[in-house]
Amino acid sequence: MNTASKAGPPGRGYVALAGWLALCYAVAALGALATTNARAFYAGLAKPGWAPPGWLFGPVWSVLFTAMAFAAWLALRTAPGVARPRAQWLFVAQLAVNALWSWLFFGWQLGGWALAELLLMWALIAATLRAFWVLRRAAAWLMAPYLAWVTFAGVLNAVLWRMNPGILG
Amino acid sequence: MNTASKAGPPGRGYVALAGWLALCYAVAALGALATTNARAFYAGLAKPGWAPPGWLFGPVWSVLFTAMAFAAWLALRTAPGVARPRAQWLFVAQLAVNALWSWLFFGWQLGGWALAELLLMWALIAATLRAFWVLRRAAAWLMAPYLAWVTFAGVLNAVLWRMNPGILG
Repeated sequence: MNTASKAGPPGRGYVALAGWLALCYAVAALGALATTNARAFYAGLAKPGWAPPGWLFGPVWSVLFTAMAFAAWLALRTAPGVARPRAQWLFVAQLAVNALWSWLFFGWQLGGWALAELLLMWALIAATLRAFWVLRRAAAWLMAPYLAWVTFAGVLNAVLWRMNPGILG
Repeated sequence: MNTASKAGPPGRGYVALAGWLALCYAVAALGALATTNARAFYAGLAKPGWAPPGWLFGPVWSVLFTAMAFAAWLALRTAPGVARPRAQWLFVAQLAVNALWSWLFFGWQLGGWALAELLLMWALIAATLRAFWVLRRAAAWLMAPYLAWVTFAGVLNAVLWRMNPGILG
């Protein structure tokens, strides 16, 4: 019984991990739907010298979505309390905003709106990271590369929006 | 004695108000130093149709700096506690960042860095407003137009940075 309790409440074991992975990959796929022509679109943009090559984004996002699923699992399988529903709400909100960003930037090519939405995404990820920190430190650390990448993506979004007035709205 | 205690701790009455006004106007002047050629500079920028006329900025900032001095006075004359030094630190930090923005945008014409710095300023103002809210609601309300204006200034900064690649770095 003690071991079971250490492994977290029922329904928050490996089945829950599979659930979080499924949710995160579903959201990643929803965003990826917007990027079907992304390689040609990205290749056609004026870019700064430090812009990463197009092939890098897929692998990076795969790692980040996997890490955030593990983060959600670790943080939200902890004992129930006031902090947990809030953290879960923030995590799901940042996921939704993440998928929408792909549509704004790649799907509808609205660089300015994408930038504004990315600021909201950044704030939601930071709030999620902070909420996870209270629940489980390791979960917060798993969100840190994601926040760092979105910071970088924000700078890239801003610069691409500026450099491509004819393409990005 | 009760009346004196209601008016706040010693040194936090009208002398303190004068002190906050002096500090805020000094910071406003420090920022204004960067904008000595601002009217001609702003007039020469490509602008969206909704950009406010140049003469509007001075009056708006005068009102906002006055309101924030009153906000600081109201919030920070409340009874001492853990929340007060933090609120004071946040208020002074956002003031410093505010003055630096004028130098980045008008003085050094670094539109991209100004935009990035403005995001930090926005976060600091929001945190100050939140800290004031705990201390005294009226003080938080006095900060609200400032936060709204900086939100608008952020959008304007981003659009001007994009529309003037040859002028704004």
